[in-house]
Amino acid sequence: MSECIFCKIIKKELPADFVYENDKIVAFLDIMPVNAGHTLVVPKEHHVDVLETPDGVLAEMMMKTKKIAQGIMKATKADGFNIGVNTKLAAGQAVFHTHFHIIPRFSADGLKHWPHKKIEKQEMQKVRDAIKLQL
Amino acid sequence: MSECIFCKIIKKELPADFVYENDKIVAFLDIMPVNAGHTLVVPKEHHVDVLETPDGVLAEMMMKTKKIAQGIMKATKADGFNIGVNTKLAAGQAVFHTHFHIIPRFSADGLKHWPHKKIEKQEMQKVRDAIKLQL
Repeated sequence: MSECIFCKIIKKELPADFVYENDKIVAFLDIMPVNAGHTLVVPKEHHVDVLETPDGVLAEMMMKTKKIAQGIMKATKADGFNIGVNTKLAAGQAVFHTHFHIIPRFSADGLKHWPHKKIEKQEMQKVRDAIKLQL
Repeated sequence: MSECIFCKIIKKELPADFVYENDKIVAFLDIMPVNAGHTLVVPKEHHVDVLETPDGVLAEMMMKTKKIAQGIMKATKADGFNIGVNTKLAAGQAVFHTHFHIIPRFSADGLKHWPHKKIEKQEMQKVRDAIKLQL
C-alpha cells in the first residue's frame, strides 16, 4: 500500500536497519526498541494484521522468526526472548501491516509480564464453551 | 515427557478447559489468565521451547493460532488480541513445553506495553551488524 510505512521500508524508500531479507519477508530493527536488538519480522506483501494474513505467509514468518531469534540471542548474548504480535488498536498495534516483534531478554532487565486474574471455575467453563462454539 | 504438566494435560491425565484439538496441537484456557479467554496453543509433541521446536510444528501452531484467535475474538467480543511466546526463563517462560499465548484485549483494559528505549544510531548499527553476522 502506497502510504504504508512498512511497505516503504520494504521498497527501500525509507531507511531501516535490515538484519534479514528473502523473497517473502524482511526483518529490521524496531526504531523504538524495548531492548537493543528488538527486531520486527515483516512480510513483503501488505496485510493489515494477522487475521488478514494468509496461512502460508504466517507459517513463513514464524519459521524465520525462530531462525532470526536464534541469531539475535547469539549477537546480543541474550538469556531469552519474547515473540509478540499485536492485533488491532486495542492490543497496541501501531502499524497496520502485519509484523512480529522479537524482543531479546536479559535476566536482570526488570521487564514484568501483565498481572493475572483469578477467574471462577464457572466463568472459565462459560468462556471455554463460547470459544468452542466458534471453532 | 512424563513429568511435564502440558504432556499430562494432552494425555488427559490432568484436567484443562480445552477449546480446540487436532492431531498435532491442542488449545486450552490458561488457568492464570490476563483476561478471560486467555488461551494456550500447545503442540502434542514435547519440545522445550521455540528454538527446539521443528519448523513444521511452529507453522501449524501459528496457522491454528490465527484460527483460534478469531474464535476468541467472537466469543469474548474482544477488540483485539496479543500473541505472546516466552522463550527461556529470562523471558518469563514458566512451562518448558512450547506454547503460544493468545490474550484477548479490550479497549479499556488498561494493559500497557513495555517502555521503549532511545538507542543511538551507532549502537543500532552495531547490533544490526552483529545480528546479520549470525544469519
